[in-house]
Amino acid sequence: MMTVGDSRVRVALLGCGVVGSQVARILVEQADDLQARVGRRLELVGIGVRRVVERPGLDAALFTTDLDALVRRADVDLVVEVIGGIAPARELILAAIETGKSVVTANKALLAQHGAEVFDAARSADVDVYYEAAVAGAIPIIRPLRESLVGDEVTVVKGIVNGTTNYILDQMHSQGWSFEKALAEAQRLGYAEADPTADVDGHDAAAKAAILASLAFHTRVHLDDVDTEGISAVTGDDIRAAERMGCVVKLLAQCSISADGTVAVGVHPTMVPREHPLGGIHGAYNAVFIESVNAGRLMFMGPGAGGTPTASAVLGDVVTAARNRVRGVASYGESAYTSPGITDPGQVTSRYYLALTVRDEPGVLARIAEAMAAHGVSIAAVLQEQSADDDATARLGITTHEAADASVRGAVERMRAGGDLSDAVRVLRVEGA
Amino acid sequence: MMTVGDSRVRVALLGCGVVGSQVARILVEQADDLQARVGRRLELVGIGVRRVVERPGLDAALFTTDLDALVRRADVDLVVEVIGGIAPARELILAAIETGKSVVTANKALLAQHGAEVFDAARSADVDVYYEAAVAGAIPIIRPLRESLVGDEVTVVKGIVNGTTNYILDQMHSQGWSFEKALAEAQRLGYAEADPTADVDGHDAAAKAAILASLAFHTRVHLDDVDTEGISAVTGDDIRAAERMGCVVKLLAQCSISADGTVAVGVHPTMVPREHPLGGIHGAYNAVFIESVNAGRLMFMGPGAGGTPTASAVLGDVVTAARNRVRGVASYGESAYTSPGITDPGQVTSRYYLALTVRDEPGVLARIAEAMAAHGVSIAAVLQEQSADDDATARLGITTHEAADASVRGAVERMRAGGDLSDAVRVLRVEGA
Repeated sequence: MMTVGDSRVRVALLGCGVVGSQVARILVEQADDLQARVGRRLELVGIGVRRVVERPGLDAALFTTDLDALVRRADVDLVVEVIGGIAPARELILAAIETGKSVVTANKALLAQHGAEVFDAARSADVDVYYEAAVAGAIPIIRPLRESLVGDEVTVVKGIVNGTTNYILDQMHSQGWSFEKALAEAQRLGYAEADPTADVDGHDAAAKAAILASLAFHTRVHLDDVDTEGISAVTGDDIRAAERMGCVVKLLAQCSISADGTVAVGVHPTMVPREHPLGGIHGAYNAVFIESVNAGRLMFMGPGAGGTPTASAVLGDVVTAARNRVRGVASYGESAYTSPGITDPGQVTSRYYLALTVRDEPGVLARIAEAMAAHGVSIAAVLQEQSADDDATARLGITTHEAADASVRGAVERMRAGGDLSDAVRVLRVEGA
Repeated sequence: MMTVGDSRVRVALLGCGVVGSQVARILVEQADDLQARVGRRLELVGIGVRRVVERPGLDAALFTTDLDALVRRADVDLVVEVIGGIAPARELILAAIETGKSVVTANKALLAQHGAEVFDAARSADVDVYYEAAVAGAIPIIRPLRESLVGDEVTVVKGIVNGTTNYILDQMHSQGWSFEKALAEAQRLGYAEADPTADVDGHDAAAKAAILASLAFHTRVHLDDVDTEGISAVTGDDIRAAERMGCVVKLLAQCSISADGTVAVGVHPTMVPREHPLGGIHGAYNAVFIESVNAGRLMFMGPGAGGTPTASAVLGDVVTAARNRVRGVASYGESAYTSPGITDPGQVTSRYYLALTVRDEPGVLARIAEAMAAHGVSIAAVLQEQSADDDATARLGITTHEAADASVRGAVERMRAGGDLSDAVRVLRVEGA
């Protein structure tokens, strides 16, 4: 890698929205401290935006709409990408790498889909790609996985990595709101976007899960590998059932090594016991729980989103990349030497909760138990949860012992075929205490 | 720095006790994975011990009692120091650095007293010194402070960083045991050493506080700068008073920036609300809470001690240092560009709880309130906590608003001079919710 050419490390910023404007502000306001920490002045030399509008505190001459020219400028050392999405971020980051710049990005979607391409390009060009801000906002989680735990065998990474859905589920519990009402409130407060799909359908959490699993297991997990379920189908009944069980519903990203050595990666609404460390994570906070052979159980929590916390993570990467730049070195980069394959989602095991509305007549429970047994699903508890609207049906809540996803689905199909189910079935995972 | 001379990175291990034996085991058992992550084989070429005894699974030929010769061997790339204490660890680490080795150490006492010397030597020799295991066992906290938060302004670091005292205080709460009984049980279970002074008197936590404050505030804080109070004076009355206030007593290490810009660093038994994230840390677990201007509030928790968790942190550093070694680079090292000075311990502010035994007669409470007011200490609540043994005295529990330590001590002296206090006074800090 090239060392910087003069007494400054010159930074180009792509994007000046919620995160980018905070990155720019800190680069300007904290310039003296950052200089003392890097050993050279960090100079913001250009800001690429879609439309140039006046921004208080930032020199109008910095702004450009020609992002491609900006990342290729010979006098730029470091490119910070906070525009998000695949295009044009992918092309811009690759152009920056090819022309010898180190890159700091918060772009989880890009890394979960094109991480291999980006990391390979960075290794070839001997430049850094840092992305602490891509997962769990301000919480240091990338660096701990990439370096602190690199001498250990991580077996499980799971967490609450999407603040929007955590806020929505929290409000459904605490206010008794429906999903729709909680989503509307989240949008009003700016916690959810006008198009909330990426958050509520679990895609954002899935991208983060892919990144975490790749790092934890020294492999490459793609967004498409993640078995993803969002929260839009979570009902008030689910919330109340969780509460009766001493649980709260959380959207959990789960990454683990299966018994056959493959990697299980999924995102699912999950009942989490209130006493579980993840059960106490409220609002827009994030938390990541790690289990490893030697370290044991670790947990990291903090603000999972927001312009300023995310900018903190970006700036940590900027200082680290700039220090490397000054000394003419690049970090080791990604370790992806294993190819364990992805666990068939049907073979991923969990405890489950099933809510069934059944005909209220003799023999039904026996047939339900038989359907579960036929698929090897062991019942932990059965509760008649509430009277249904009419006398002819009853609502049952069944919790299972550890079982494969496909087995639980198979048992439900068998009950359905038997004609005993009279309404929609809800199946939710249940986290161990 | 020199790159490694052949196809292996050769590691010398100093110490083969609780931590060292686990480091050796992992280096041997996980050799293939570690090789894949470093790009070269990690070879354990020598183990320095006080007495050579046979250890299952380790080649007897590796052991030597000549530690000085081991660290100076020309064919050693990396020295791992887990013997602890100042001598001979200090001389061995300096000899290793001077002869061009990178160093991984878990030695908090050494770094809190001679960190400046060690880091300066490493910078001169262009080698790495990593020490993730020195604070909070397996919890990644050094790297997050050194790199992830290096673009932010950390204002507070506080935590439970000594598992032994946390176990003892936990048992005093849950079992109703005295300090002496809980300590004896901790010793029986191996959580406390035969000489428990370093733990129960707070010196171990103070060393960690000095290291955390140095990193967080980009300065150098020495062990002697830490205002240190242990837990041996904590009584059953303190424990019960905490419980009445919805709190638990924890030994907290606290590092913060005072209003005048100086650094306040202390270790004190402190009442922590049960709902505070640090209030729920049990047994030998550790937790570190960080506040910064941009990231907000972060918390890290996990196993704070034990051979295997500590070895996990050591191995993370070994892999990082070995990767650097292979590429002929060293990490940036410590950033200590500020000299803010240490806050006078008397000027450190906190909320306080005072337990006073007073003569039970008219006018006493007025005189106590006057003594507090004279020193500018504002009372938040007064409770007559229990009948004392005789009718002539009463026990009062007073909680204050934020006040300087010296003001609270001054108020107590004034009460004492007034002749109203009939027994020992207990003063404990109270953490905000």
